[in-house]
Amino acid sequence: MDLNADLGEGFGSWSMGDDSALLEVVTSANVACGFHAGDPSIMRRVTAEAVERGVAIGAHVGYADKAGFGRRFVDVEPTVLRDEVVYQLGALDAFARIAGDRVRYVKPHGALYNTIGHHVEQATAVVSAVAEYDKTLPVLGLPGSAWLRLAAEAGLPVVHEAFADRAYTAEGTLVSRRLPGSVLHDADEIAARCVAVAGGYEIRDVDGDSLVVEAASICVHGDTPGAVEIARRVRGALEGAGVELRPFTG
Amino acid sequence: MDLNADLGEGFGSWSMGDDSALLEVVTSANVACGFHAGDPSIMRRVTAEAVERGVAIGAHVGYADKAGFGRRFVDVEPTVLRDEVVYQLGALDAFARIAGDRVRYVKPHGALYNTIGHHVEQATAVVSAVAEYDKTLPVLGLPGSAWLRLAAEAGLPVVHEAFADRAYTAEGTLVSRRLPGSVLHDADEIAARCVAVAGGYEIRDVDGDSLVVEAASICVHGDTPGAVEIARRVRGALEGAGVELRPFTG
Amino acid sequence: MDLNADLGEGFGSWSMGDDSALLEVVTSANVACGFHAGDPSIMRRVTAEAVERGVAIGAHVGYADKAGFGRRFVDVEPTVLRDEVVYQLGALDAFARIAGDRVRYVKPHGALYNTIGHHVEQATAVVSAVAEYDKTLPVLGLPGSAWLRLAAEAGLPVVHEAFADRAYTAEGTLVSRRLPGSVLHDADEIAARCVAVAGGYEIRDVDGDSLVVEAASICVHGDTPGAVEIARRVRGALEGAGVELRPFTG
Amino acid sequence: MDLNADLGEGFGSWSMGDDSALLEVVTSANVACGFHAGDPSIMRRVTAEAVERGVAIGAHVGYADKAGFGRRFVDVEPTVLRDEVVYQLGALDAFARIAGDRVRYVKPHGALYNTIGHHVEQATAVVSAVAEYDKTLPVLGLPGSAWLRLAAEAGLPVVHEAFADRAYTAEGTLVSRRLPGSVLHDADEIAARCVAVAGGYEIRDVDGDSLVVEAASICVHGDTPGAVEIARRVRGALEGAGVELRPFTG
Repeated sequence: MDLNADLGEGFGSWSMGDDSALLEVVTSANVACGFHAGDPSIMRRVTAEAVERGVAIGAHVGYADKAGFGRRFVDVEPTVLRDEVVYQLGALDAFARIAGDRVRYVKPHGALYNTIGHHVEQATAVVSAVAEYDKTLPVLGLPGSAWLRLAAEAGLPVVHEAFADRAYTAEGTLVSRRLPGSVLHDADEIAARCVAVAGGYEIRDVDGDSLVVEAASICVHGDTPGAVEIARRVRGALEGAGVELRPFTG
Repeated sequence: MDLNADLGEGFGSWSMGDDSALLEVVTSANVACGFHAGDPSIMRRVTAEAVERGVAIGAHVGYADKAGFGRRFVDVEPTVLRDEVVYQLGALDAFARIAGDRVRYVKPHGALYNTIGHHVEQATAVVSAVAEYDKTLPVLGLPGSAWLRLAAEAGLPVVHEAFADRAYTAEGTLVSRRLPGSVLHDADEIAARCVAVAGGYEIRDVDGDSLVVEAASICVHGDTPGAVEIARRVRGALEGAGVELRPFTG
Repeated sequence: MDLNADLGEGFGSWSMGDDSALLEVVTSANVACGFHAGDPSIMRRVTAEAVERGVAIGAHVGYADKAGFGRRFVDVEPTVLRDEVVYQLGALDAFARIAGDRVRYVKPHGALYNTIGHHVEQATAVVSAVAEYDKTLPVLGLPGSAWLRLAAEAGLPVVHEAFADRAYTAEGTLVSRRLPGSVLHDADEIAARCVAVAGGYEIRDVDGDSLVVEAASICVHGDTPGAVEIARRVRGALEGAGVELRPFTG
Repeated sequence: MDLNADLGEGFGSWSMGDDSALLEVVTSANVACGFHAGDPSIMRRVTAEAVERGVAIGAHVGYADKAGFGRRFVDVEPTVLRDEVVYQLGALDAFARIAGDRVRYVKPHGALYNTIGHHVEQATAVVSAVAEYDKTLPVLGLPGSAWLRLAAEAGLPVVHEAFADRAYTAEGTLVSRRLPGSVLHDADEIAARCVAVAGGYEIRDVDGDSLVVEAASICVHGDTPGAVEIARRVRGALEGAGVELRPFTG
């Protein structure tokens, strides 16, 4: 099983989360590429530390919107979005290569992630960018999303992820953050659920019914209070259950 | 002989110069990388057209300052500048590779070009970035600049350029733009001078004395009124004199 | 009758349209406030020239999106949008006051203009900003838009505008730019239609049926080829028909 | 005596310092205006809370450089800098007025503050902006700076400030941050020194000699670890010594 988290989300003098602490916990780092967050010096620091620790580097591409932290939909033209993704991939890859590795996968960020779950034009744009850049680059996302479906059709390797702290519907999609109970806060519950997902066991959906979530990677969050502590708990529980943790990229 | 010009200097809905017209004239394109000018879609368009025409793609790296078009000194920390240059190189290279080629050389833009002529810390930063990214990447600049001296010490191939429309001092440096007569406007004079430089003949410095300028590339400008016409005249004169025009990168 | 146009839409070294030429034609200037276009020095120049010529200064507020020129929808939170509009109003007003006048009206730009025609939350946000800033400030827009309806409910003076070069539906709304025939290009036809609107006469809608468009201001465009020439033709036709041209703000 | 601190220095999802805690301590708030830090929603929040608490609102104007947090010199043209300062003043004033007050003074930030201590062209530009905007607006700075000298010549009220935690030279200027001992860290020492400044007593300069620093305001910092605690200690010590704390603006 792989653990992924968003990293490198500071900007200039502003910091966000504790990158070094999370890099001790996760096996894949979704590294911001300077569009919604991150800057060249942060990208260098995070990629270097990731390589040192054997953490896989993923391109966490987002809308060009630092003021909104990439969390709001922008109705950008698909060709422009495609080019923005290529730009971010190339920029991050430069740092990954200087650090001795390369970009190993792509995971869109925030509103872009949500949008391309269903917005076919924007999903196609991101898929095109990845395919143009490197046809062998895996993409990470939710089962059932337009993003993964179109990526698979384009021949890109697709990887399913689960969310450690998000409630699921009976259909296996995430409960909207606007609804009560959408985010889990109890560290023990979160850890137990991750162990279940890793083992292929049933978890409970938002209605209490059983559900099996198949995933090769589990996303833990890094920018909320107590996030690092929860991530550590998840890792400890998985290791305690005998689950081997390593990047899904092999 | 090689002819280089700055290209891709629009931004979003704003344009600057006539990229397509210039790409018919020059053999090397200094392509803006989105920091002082340019954006991902412009970078795609210009690199694709350059490859189509056999024009070499150079990274025209600059300060992160669109409001100032990269024309004002920013006292950025050397490590930050180094990382900004790596970022720009990676981003442009992504488009160059998608177009079927790759970044062939590096030429800093505007205030960064002027600054690293003498500012050792910033020059070292840019040299480090290029050397980290690709130790074989040639750098373009003025003979006698700190930039070329430090690049040579770092083992990077260095290439001298001459300026088609700038007056020279007796020492072979450019006359400051603040002084009268620093910029030539007569197309015939400019063309004749380029032929002399290409042939290794003497030109006149600002005082009327003779001077030999050695250069493997001549820079023509693209963003001034009549620029494209002057560039065409230069090319025509060089071809008329039997000078073969091709990228200095071979 | 009033003629309004978008002005001050350059940015740094990039220009857009011919501000001085348009300021000789229009009676109201929608001045970009540095979010979708414009910068402090452009705002100073345009407001100073507007005051000199007796042209009323309007705040052309937009999304914070220079890369997209304010032409794409951004799903910004209403409270953030409200604050962004206040910011733009205050900034432009500073220049208007230094020039000897003040901001006389508000007209949203591009995608914001289109969005608040129907998006109630964003329309409310812009209305709140204007009302907070100055309850007496008129707002300019399309009859039937959520923007004008909510502004009127908030007690702001509302002013209807017509578009010189856009086709109208039978209901008096604009034909979408995506449909054929949505934009008129014939200068004579445009000028004749403006005279009809000014006189309260019927014009032809997109289907050829007659329609009366009531408006206190007509919007002419400034950033398309031939735009200034068309604007001059409109002005000439209106003056020839005995229509007095002056700012709707009185 | 007045206590001033830098506030509102977050940006979007990124925070910096604890604005609410500092607003309980200081009597004047230097509020970032969205150029080096801050954004419209932060400006609204800080100005509203400042007015509630009777804290005077100052415009903390800076270079347009969020990536560098306004801490690096930018060789911006004086006319452009002047216009950027006008823009920031107008924007902040809009929020101050909505909150029921107005901008009460101007204090430049970071590299701009340092630069206009000696850079006459940039100092003149900032002075011109303030004088154009409001000839009665006090400016805050260091005794002996070009900034205050030129402001006084332009007829602006000038106010001297002292720095609570910075070492002074024998001449009464600040010891460069690059030198050892330039910043004081001991809360008791800082508090005692503030009491001395407030009472007109001697303090020790960096060499241990006595020095009298005359100031109507003392600057405390808010963005360093323990900053709020030190600021509280300073306030407590001043109150304990019977010093009345209120805005220098009266």
